[in-house]
Amino acid sequence: MTTLWRERPVGVVGLGLIGGSIGLDLMALDVDVRGLVHRQATVERARQRGLARQVSTDPAVLTGCALVLLALPLDQLLAPSPELLAALPKQAVIADLASVKAPVLAAWEPLVPRFVATHPMAGTAAAGVEAGQPNLFRGRPWVATPTLHTDPEAMAQIRDLARDLGARWLECDAQDHDRAVALISHLPVLVSAALLRAAEQGAEAAPRAAMPQLVRALASSGFADTTRVGGGNPELGTLMARSNRAAVVEALGQYRQALDGLEGLLERHDWEGLARELESCRALRPEFL
Amino acid sequence: MTTLWRERPVGVVGLGLIGGSIGLDLMALDVDVRGLVHRQATVERARQRGLARQVSTDPAVLTGCALVLLALPLDQLLAPSPELLAALPKQAVIADLASVKAPVLAAWEPLVPRFVATHPMAGTAAAGVEAGQPNLFRGRPWVATPTLHTDPEAMAQIRDLARDLGARWLECDAQDHDRAVALISHLPVLVSAALLRAAEQGAEAAPRAAMPQLVRALASSGFADTTRVGGGNPELGTLMARSNRAAVVEALGQYRQALDGLEGLLERHDWEGLARELESCRALRPEFL
Repeated sequence: MTTLWRERPVGVVGLGLIGGSIGLDLMALDVDVRGLVHRQATVERARQRGLARQVSTDPAVLTGCALVLLALPLDQLLAPSPELLAALPKQAVIADLASVKAPVLAAWEPLVPRFVATHPMAGTAAAGVEAGQPNLFRGRPWVATPTLHTDPEAMAQIRDLARDLGARWLECDAQDHDRAVALISHLPVLVSAALLRAAEQGAEAAPRAAMPQLVRALASSGFADTTRVGGGNPELGTLMARSNRAAVVEALGQYRQALDGLEGLLERHDWEGLARELESCRALRPEFL
Repeated sequence: MTTLWRERPVGVVGLGLIGGSIGLDLMALDVDVRGLVHRQATVERARQRGLARQVSTDPAVLTGCALVLLALPLDQLLAPSPELLAALPKQAVIADLASVKAPVLAAWEPLVPRFVATHPMAGTAAAGVEAGQPNLFRGRPWVATPTLHTDPEAMAQIRDLARDLGARWLECDAQDHDRAVALISHLPVLVSAALLRAAEQGAEAAPRAAMPQLVRALASSGFADTTRVGGGNPELGTLMARSNRAAVVEALGQYRQALDGLEGLLERHDWEGLARELESCRALRPEFL
């Protein structure tokens, strides 16, 4: 099998955190990276940062690419522009990098013949053309969700590229992926945001006027940790919930059961039971890290 | 007013994270610190680490102390040993440092005449005789919860000591304190533990056998942050919930409302509403940090 991106240009659509980081790593491997961006201001900056060899707002920049990585925000990915679709080379391997997979497959598999749905799990809070960084994917999972329609050779191209960037390649069913990220990525955002709201409302509801101030003064590192993802990008959080709604609602149901369990122990004054449950949760955590 | 601990010995009962850190800081201020510990092995180590000038398992080490700080685990504090009570100098200022205040006041105010209930908010995950560190309290809140029975001069002694250790002194009602820590310290533990349980149960409940492994493989830094306090010391978590049960149950009620609100937005496909709510939560977070 020819390793396409060693010999022919690779297109990267969107040069934010994920696209920019891929660009940097591929450029370091001497790959001919072609970046397609939305705004002219981004073109200049992406060139300066060395995210791609050529950068343009004109989809024609993708001409001749054997492989195109779609590093677009989820909403743009789910409603691709006709200009982008027209510019994608007909036989190119096209891969997306978004954090929800079933809706992306539903949108893209009918549009292009060699589509590969993937999700490199290497998010940070950063975004935009300044966010890309070298070695972002090193040691991180890069999940692919092949279907019956996925061309195995196309997927192998993306797999080899992911591995060259240092990622750990995983394959699973798209629905399993979406359920998994609902539990470990989208649910935490809601759980964490609700804690911010509860702390604020609990303080407001208290009989003393000084409570809102007191609650804010006493919040410490534990509160900061637990509310970090809930205080993240609201558009991103909404897009995740919207595009993965069924799995997120299911995850919320699981969460409610877990919380009910803890609340029941408190209601029954079952302190041994609570200690056992907290011990069991503590033992679970290292399995996830 | 005489600053008692400048002239006479200060007793510290328990030389774990909080007691040991106080010992280190007071020793650095050339205070004559007397440490009372439970086990002989701790005596040697506490001496080696310089947590106190004298360390003993014999409560008589507190003889002559003008001021005694009770840095005991909450369960031991709520059921003090007769030996400890007998050894406390009759006119000494006695202060506790526990994270729940109303039950401590109920237990201790009838026992000693000059009791001051306080809570230095400087926890870390560390515990035991190795945990104490210099400057732990610098810039951190140190809350006092005076009652009608609190001797103002006794409280002023503790206040000056806390300030000499660099802490920010705050005074509030004990019930307000307990409500506040329920919201920003005890509730996060339960919210966070429930997330670990939900991720595990959600993965187990999924139709595919590979889900438990997949969910564990994909958990990232957001999941790690949100579950940090839920994976903490289970005995401590249980003690907090037990000793602050009413306020924690109230906080859980607030939390349930907040979560219901988010779930309702998902159920109604109200994505604008969800984006607004997440934006509002994001704006709240800096107020707490």
